[in-house]
Amino acid sequence: MARNAHPEVTRRRILDAAQKLFSEKGFEHTSMQDIVNELGNLSKGAIYHHFPGKEAILEELTHRDWEASHGLLDELRQRTDLTGLEKIREVIRRSVTSETHLDIQRDAAQFLEDSTTLAHNLQSWQTTVADGFHTLIMDGVKDGSITTEYPREAAILLSLLLNYWVACAPTAADTEPRTRCVATMLAAIGLPVFNEELIDLTVRGFQAFNAPSFYPEPHDTADDRNR
Amino acid sequence: MARNAHPEVTRRRILDAAQKLFSEKGFEHTSMQDIVNELGNLSKGAIYHHFPGKEAILEELTHRDWEASHGLLDELRQRTDLTGLEKIREVIRRSVTSETHLDIQRDAAQFLEDSTTLAHNLQSWQTTVADGFHTLIMDGVKDGSITTEYPREAAILLSLLLNYWVACAPTAADTEPRTRCVATMLAAIGLPVFNEELIDLTVRGFQAFNAPSFYPEPHDTADDRNR
Repeated sequence: MARNAHPEVTRRRILDAAQKLFSEKGFEHTSMQDIVNELGNLSKGAIYHHFPGKEAILEELTHRDWEASHGLLDELRQRTDLTGLEKIREVIRRSVTSETHLDIQRDAAQFLEDSTTLAHNLQSWQTTVADGFHTLIMDGVKDGSITTEYPREAAILLSLLLNYWVACAPTAADTEPRTRCVATMLAAIGLPVFNEELIDLTVRGFQAFNAPSFYPEPHDTADDRNR
Repeated sequence: MARNAHPEVTRRRILDAAQKLFSEKGFEHTSMQDIVNELGNLSKGAIYHHFPGKEAILEELTHRDWEASHGLLDELRQRTDLTGLEKIREVIRRSVTSETHLDIQRDAAQFLEDSTTLAHNLQSWQTTVADGFHTLIMDGVKDGSITTEYPREAAILLSLLLNYWVACAPTAADTEPRTRCVATMLAAIGLPVFNEELIDLTVRGFQAFNAPSFYPEPHDTADDRNR
């Protein structure tokens, strides 16, 4: 097949096919050959021309997911029918109910075993991601929907606790008590963002990728939670 | 000088001298030669025989500090004059007022820039250290001084937030609001461990090693805390 005159189109096709396969079979069980087969009319060489391996594809999918989150944030900031508090709820609601987002997060989560990736993520959760929440919290402070002495701390804690402590909980059984703790704690410092509906959605969303199969060697089990 | 017949005595002398110098001059500005000079009657070769470098000395000091914390925990568990809640307060009070402990923590904190060390510490804060707090929380549940639905989560959050989020805050100005957030949040999930006195001691203790000089390139400054 002749080289595509529009490399961006080819890249997008590869990313879409990979995302579909990662979601169906899991990242670990998808090979570059599976992606070749899925696309049908692209050679393995053509795919490697765009991405050195499936890790690079996942990295680009993570970046695309990240840009989608930023797009959502910008879109929500424009909305005049929602208060700041409602905007934060909407960001979380969409994150924990988006299958695409959860699939990518689940695939990317296993790389947090790598300490460099973990350190990098901890840094962005406490800076870039927290900055996004901080903007919406300040909207809420202005419109009166949020009253907190700690807008900056609340933004960092929401991002850090949700993305690290809840999403990366060692077992699925930890997801609900951790989510409820975060809900209660954030409300106590003036950010009552989690109502029962959002707690329920968050637990169900995160349990999908805290399932034991994704953590072959858990540090803890449901049985000894109360030891 | 003849080789010491009691290598443990020599090791302890080296550790004590290094601890004194690290505390006075800071880890970074202490050389192995300084330790030789401080000890007076030991050759540089004799010191290298025990420790390959000052990093190894700091590691051993950290281990010694860790064992002291465990000893304190065991000692407190035996006390019948304190409730579980008071025992946890005492652990924190002693940690944030012990100059030796704070000096070592401050010196060790700079190695958290290394992602492997950070990942290792995050793991022990959430397991071994949290287990210690969990034991005392369960004592408190038994004696009625603590009423919480989340004993395990509260133990992990106390350890993780205090050791990571408060102790490793990017600037000294972050220490007080972060400590107050942790105090309010833990009280909200049933662990009212921080009273005003303990908040004050914690802020003063941690500010010592959150001073700007220990963080040459802060990610954030006091000035933009409220941006």
